[in-house]
Amino acid sequence: MKMVLTIFLIIFSLFITFSQASVVDFCVADYTAPNGPAGYSCKSPAKVTVDDFVYSGLGAVGNTSNIIKAAVTPAFDAQFAGVNGLGISAARLDLAPGGVIPLHTHPGASELIVVVQGTICAGFVSSDNKVYIKTLKKGDVMVYPQGLLHFQLNGGGTQALAFVSFSSANPGLQILDFALFKSDFPTELITETTFLDAAQVKKLKGVLGGSG
Amino acid sequence: MKMVLTIFLIIFSLFITFSQASVVDFCVADYTAPNGPAGYSCKSPAKVTVDDFVYSGLGAVGNTSNIIKAAVTPAFDAQFAGVNGLGISAARLDLAPGGVIPLHTHPGASELIVVVQGTICAGFVSSDNKVYIKTLKKGDVMVYPQGLLHFQLNGGGTQALAFVSFSSANPGLQILDFALFKSDFPTELITETTFLDAAQVKKLKGVLGGSG
Amino acid sequence: MKMVLTIFLIIFSLFITFSQASVVDFCVADYTAPNGPAGYSCKSPAKVTVDDFVYSGLGAVGNTSNIIKAAVTPAFDAQFAGVNGLGISAARLDLAPGGVIPLHTHPGASELIVVVQGTICAGFVSSDNKVYIKTLKKGDVMVYPQGLLHFQLNGGGTQALAFVSFSSANPGLQILDFALFKSDFPTELITETTFLDAAQVKKLKGVLGGSG
Amino acid sequence: MKMVLTIFLIIFSLFITFSQASVVDFCVADYTAPNGPAGYSCKSPAKVTVDDFVYSGLGAVGNTSNIIKAAVTPAFDAQFAGVNGLGISAARLDLAPGGVIPLHTHPGASELIVVVQGTICAGFVSSDNKVYIKTLKKGDVMVYPQGLLHFQLNGGGTQALAFVSFSSANPGLQILDFALFKSDFPTELITETTFLDAAQVKKLKGVLGGSG
Amino acid sequence: MKMVLTIFLIIFSLFITFSQASVVDFCVADYTAPNGPAGYSCKSPAKVTVDDFVYSGLGAVGNTSNIIKAAVTPAFDAQFAGVNGLGISAARLDLAPGGVIPLHTHPGASELIVVVQGTICAGFVSSDNKVYIKTLKKGDVMVYPQGLLHFQLNGGGTQALAFVSFSSANPGLQILDFALFKSDFPTELITETTFLDAAQVKKLKGVLGGSG
Amino acid sequence: MKMVLTIFLIIFSLFITFSQASVVDFCVADYTAPNGPAGYSCKSPAKVTVDDFVYSGLGAVGNTSNIIKAAVTPAFDAQFAGVNGLGISAARLDLAPGGVIPLHTHPGASELIVVVQGTICAGFVSSDNKVYIKTLKKGDVMVYPQGLLHFQLNGGGTQALAFVSFSSANPGLQILDFALFKSDFPTELITETTFLDAAQVKKLKGVLGGSG
Repeated sequence: MKMVLTIFLIIFSLFITFSQASVVDFCVADYTAPNGPAGYSCKSPAKVTVDDFVYSGLGAVGNTSNIIKAAVTPAFDAQFAGVNGLGISAARLDLAPGGVIPLHTHPGASELIVVVQGTICAGFVSSDNKVYIKTLKKGDVMVYPQGLLHFQLNGGGTQALAFVSFSSANPGLQILDFALFKSDFPTELITETTFLDAAQVKKLKGVLGGSG
Repeated sequence: MKMVLTIFLIIFSLFITFSQASVVDFCVADYTAPNGPAGYSCKSPAKVTVDDFVYSGLGAVGNTSNIIKAAVTPAFDAQFAGVNGLGISAARLDLAPGGVIPLHTHPGASELIVVVQGTICAGFVSSDNKVYIKTLKKGDVMVYPQGLLHFQLNGGGTQALAFVSFSSANPGLQILDFALFKSDFPTELITETTFLDAAQVKKLKGVLGGSG
Repeated sequence: MKMVLTIFLIIFSLFITFSQASVVDFCVADYTAPNGPAGYSCKSPAKVTVDDFVYSGLGAVGNTSNIIKAAVTPAFDAQFAGVNGLGISAARLDLAPGGVIPLHTHPGASELIVVVQGTICAGFVSSDNKVYIKTLKKGDVMVYPQGLLHFQLNGGGTQALAFVSFSSANPGLQILDFALFKSDFPTELITETTFLDAAQVKKLKGVLGGSG
Repeated sequence: MKMVLTIFLIIFSLFITFSQASVVDFCVADYTAPNGPAGYSCKSPAKVTVDDFVYSGLGAVGNTSNIIKAAVTPAFDAQFAGVNGLGISAARLDLAPGGVIPLHTHPGASELIVVVQGTICAGFVSSDNKVYIKTLKKGDVMVYPQGLLHFQLNGGGTQALAFVSFSSANPGLQILDFALFKSDFPTELITETTFLDAAQVKKLKGVLGGSG
Repeated sequence: MKMVLTIFLIIFSLFITFSQASVVDFCVADYTAPNGPAGYSCKSPAKVTVDDFVYSGLGAVGNTSNIIKAAVTPAFDAQFAGVNGLGISAARLDLAPGGVIPLHTHPGASELIVVVQGTICAGFVSSDNKVYIKTLKKGDVMVYPQGLLHFQLNGGGTQALAFVSFSSANPGLQILDFALFKSDFPTELITETTFLDAAQVKKLKGVLGGSG
Repeated sequence: MKMVLTIFLIIFSLFITFSQASVVDFCVADYTAPNGPAGYSCKSPAKVTVDDFVYSGLGAVGNTSNIIKAAVTPAFDAQFAGVNGLGISAARLDLAPGGVIPLHTHPGASELIVVVQGTICAGFVSSDNKVYIKTLKKGDVMVYPQGLLHFQLNGGGTQALAFVSFSSANPGLQILDFALFKSDFPTELITETTFLDAAQVKKLKGVLGGSG
């Protein structure tokens, strides 16, 4: 009897702590509330379930029937509420033979790639214009330092699959060709700031749907 | 006369700065607005008073009439609005003779303990399974690196009192026994992931009120 | 025809990424939503325009017809919504001959000053009471480490102009004289905590409008 | 001729920038120099090669012929020099049927797991003693918030493989059983701080090789 | 026999992890190696003992036989090697009746004070020149936001004792009077940047030993 | 006499604090010691002078007699030792009429530009391929969020001058054209990852000196 009583005493004396501890444990994104520089607002811990911490969207093969023969399927905080505020996120890369993830950067994160099927030729360029390229085989891991231009390319004859993770819940993704040729970046300004020929710019805007 | 005028000029020319400067000075928690990964929303500076920066909840002796003969009284951001966003918080530890704060971690912060009354046997275990234990006397300070298992125990004959502070406004508190035996963690999974005997698990669940 | 189709496929397969990527690219301040320790809430990317990233308030000469013959015009997150969450902000300093930015600190940031017109005598004091003073000429850059007392003074015969930047979107600004003599800091407490004579305190409160 | 000259001018005028830019691009660990709170010292950029950014140690199946029928193969900054300072790292988990990664924490990081073969029963416990458990199938991703107790268990009939990543280059790994039973943690202190029976403690120390 | 063997297998398979995990657990200061922006270099984990995490220097009453009738005894990373890199530190404040810790700032940290004996009149000034003052009694906790001017004063008739902690391992300490009057800050520049009378400045320099 | 004595008492009682306080105040780069992820090692405070905090390298007009008719003169931590570890740095931009700073990113920082002479057409592209372009006049400030492609161009008839600052002591600088055409990035890989024509790539490599 006394034991039961004392149990209640502990539970009571520590309840105040537990009532808020979840705030620091995690902050599952509440997409209906405002977001700020650190991420989305937190869903009430009472409404959080295990499914908030599990994402199944990377289980399916991405659609590679497109011009790049590749697909990027993100599990960033906008798709995967559980990673909000935790400084990590993921994505799935599918590359058909000859497929390529065109030259791109993640403005807000470093990236780590793990090849789980096929082979992938991966590379990045540093600020001092050194190029670091390696063909990765199954099980190889490569890291791309934050914000640097990098690419992945399937030079092999079989479908390739890789999972990537990022040092931020929302790393961003700026694809060079899309920034230049799938935007309304005026052709004249592109030629002046890249030295590309206008004809080249117009040709790629035609393919990718850019204007200006 | 001219002096008075110039005063107004300064006040006016600098008013725009002051109208927002408090935002960075402090962000007293507004518990009625959404919270995010960095903490609670900020109460309007106009409504902030000195009492938002003072907490008296640690002044009273904690109730040690319980199974652990000890009490933890937190002054985290959920209790002490003024520490929100400032990267620091506190708690009071009361330990009756034989009292113990069971093995626990703070997932989000390092902890610093100062003994102000009695003696406390304190220790932590590092990732490489080294155990660091010392009996602290009045005035001694000990630090527990972030996220590591640690404990406090009053092996002396007199009541002990310590104040602890944390490198976060909300360090969290995961008490090992409560995580295992005061939760609905299935007994079978506990035995498989800790190698504890089922009988031991069931016995402690009986004491602490766990289910599963 | 097939090409056009594949374009749509890319656009679709990547749309989910782009729909949220802006969250990490920038978080333009929405002054109507709650703010938190990390800054203001983010305006919807759909409503963001280039004008959110441009601030023209530093283009006009500040009003130096005041007691300090100087003006500080801030472009902090409260004035310049585009810097919210980006860890940087700016201000314009105008100093007439003999003008001075009185001794002050920025509680939350380091400062970098660039002199673009005239000469400025600039200095700061470190925690070990060393004083670092230099007369900066046009084009000179000086850095003040975070939180330390510093000043700028125009000892030359011509108007001086400088632009400063900060390592925070909201560095704060605590001007020593205003904290002591333009506040309601009780004179008795000022004398006890600064060793200044009461007469000196009262004289400056008279000039700056302090009470208590 | 003039063109060649102007090229040299650009190269020269920008060389000073490039000579140090690598410092921020990356900081490949130099294990022979001192390390600090932020990680290892940086290897000279001139000595860095692509192989510093690629790690092949996760390509081989881990040895699961042990008591836990599982293996953890880390690619932290101590093994994978390229991730030093980048806020990310990885590990490979191999679990034979019935294999288990015992209850553990990563004191310094959140973890993201991707299942690439078999099924894994994964779970964690929050500070408020809620248990979040889910059986993950191939392609599922789960996140464990920083510092919380979690486990992985292969309840299926086939070998399971997962890759995990962390929000730190050195997340640490504290395995509960090893901290208690493979260390020199005195049995009496363990029983006092965990309420486990001495017999249980001694039994597991016997299995895992603990002393005290 | 087989059991013993398998134990060795675990120990071996996990040894590589443990050999470096301490790096993230803690980074005890090695005062003989270079220090950097994040703190001191790390002592080899093999040489670390529990005494690196315990500091007894705050156990003795500080010497208050001085002009301020008070003493500040720091346990920053320069005195307490164990807090290096952990984002927390401490200090002891002793105030005789009438004692005062003069107006000061900590450029790099927020501060939390706990009164353990006597009463202390504590206050700070915010960037918008609001003054927050309260007389703290035994057990009261107060927080001073980072970088703001604050003070502690013993207005009671008995010795006062407080322990303070900081949100940094090295918060710094800039005492206003010492910065102005115990330095070689030229009197003319002080008067120009503070509006204090030269006579006042010279008088306090005489007391505190300043030059210039 | 007694006064002099008490002065010594204060100086002594506080000396221990001051002996290390500079560590947090600043960490002037010591280029002869190892550097790490957080920056360069710190020069001994005893050897630091005001000249470590002042940089005059931005005072001279940059050499714009080159192919881009522009010059970038950095004051990053590698050139300006005083900013090491302070989270801020600067650069000077000179643009002759028609001059351009080609499309580039700063992988590790946000940038703030202030135009002090002439007009500059400035723009950046976000992750969702929106282009933000504005012609800045004297006194205008613009911010570029971290890691995004941006450019500056002098479309006016007169020399233009701007000072830029960054939210890091070493923001890095990756110029798109140099990464592609002044490196040894194999032409075939460039064409595959950018869809540029090989002829275009070879033409620009010829101009900029790239190989591969």
